[in-house]
Amino acid sequence: MIVLGLDPSLSCTGWGVIRVDGPRLSHIANGQIATDAKAPLAERLHHLHDAVFAVIGAHQPDVAAAEEVFVNKNPQSTLKLAQARGAVLAACGRASLPVHEHAARLVKKSVVGTGGADKAQVQAMLKVLLPTAKVSGADAADALAVAIAHAHLGPSL
Amino acid sequence: MIVLGLDPSLSCTGWGVIRVDGPRLSHIANGQIATDAKAPLAERLHHLHDAVFAVIGAHQPDVAAAEEVFVNKNPQSTLKLAQARGAVLAACGRASLPVHEHAARLVKKSVVGTGGADKAQVQAMLKVLLPTAKVSGADAADALAVAIAHAHLGPSL
Repeated sequence: MIVLGLDPSLSCTGWGVIRVDGPRLSHIANGQIATDAKAPLAERLHHLHDAVFAVIGAHQPDVAAAEEVFVNKNPQSTLKLAQARGAVLAACGRASLPVHEHAARLVKKSVVGTGGADKAQVQAMLKVLLPTAKVSGADAADALAVAIAHAHLGPSL
Repeated sequence: MIVLGLDPSLSCTGWGVIRVDGPRLSHIANGQIATDAKAPLAERLHHLHDAVFAVIGAHQPDVAAAEEVFVNKNPQSTLKLAQARGAVLAACGRASLPVHEHAARLVKKSVVGTGGADKAQVQAMLKVLLPTAKVSGADAADALAVAIAHAHLGPSL
């Protein structure tokens, strides 16, 4: 099974593709889709949508996984994030790719063993779990983490 | 100039197309795009995206207009709305259609003369401003209202 992990955000959406072979995980690809902060919102959303659709076409995943979205302290950030997520998930829908959502706490817990892990800890575990991966950045790392979590947690929420 | 008004929501996105000829407005078309509440989120977002893209292709608007989004009292509703909006605006970006955002208060004010107008008042004014329009429903009415507001307010925020 090939899993596409997604970490949507308006400024930079991370993605990571892994192969899951029973208990064995292997890295396929990862990357980040940055948008131009000066471009109009609709253009940025289209860019995310199109680039994610292209990633799906290139790697033919069987399933996508993303963290559940939640309202954080900054309402404007939440709105930006949710709009980016809408554009990204619409691309999965366009490709008929099922998307599973996992709570952020469970993603961390399934990758590093605790729900309260910080980013550095998650990235350190990525080196252990996917030693051949050259990770494009923090957003790609988060996307690989959610793909790994999906492999561990399975399709249930 | 042809203006596409959009009222995005996950369950039912309204759209309305009008022609603006100096001070003269005329109705071209309106409709509502409903999604299946039982379908997966990504599929619903894709449906909205695709249907809005088809509306743009059919009516070739010069500009799109939508109300500004804000965080309301129910965070889950806000997240659904913002994701729907992301999928819809990405379709505008895909069609290279510029999108202008107007504050909800200004939309009402420019259609009925007061920012505190209720839905019934907005719909009554639509009958006056676009007498030939057969409005598909409340969401299409809101979309026509934002298109009219854009005609009155112009491209500035």
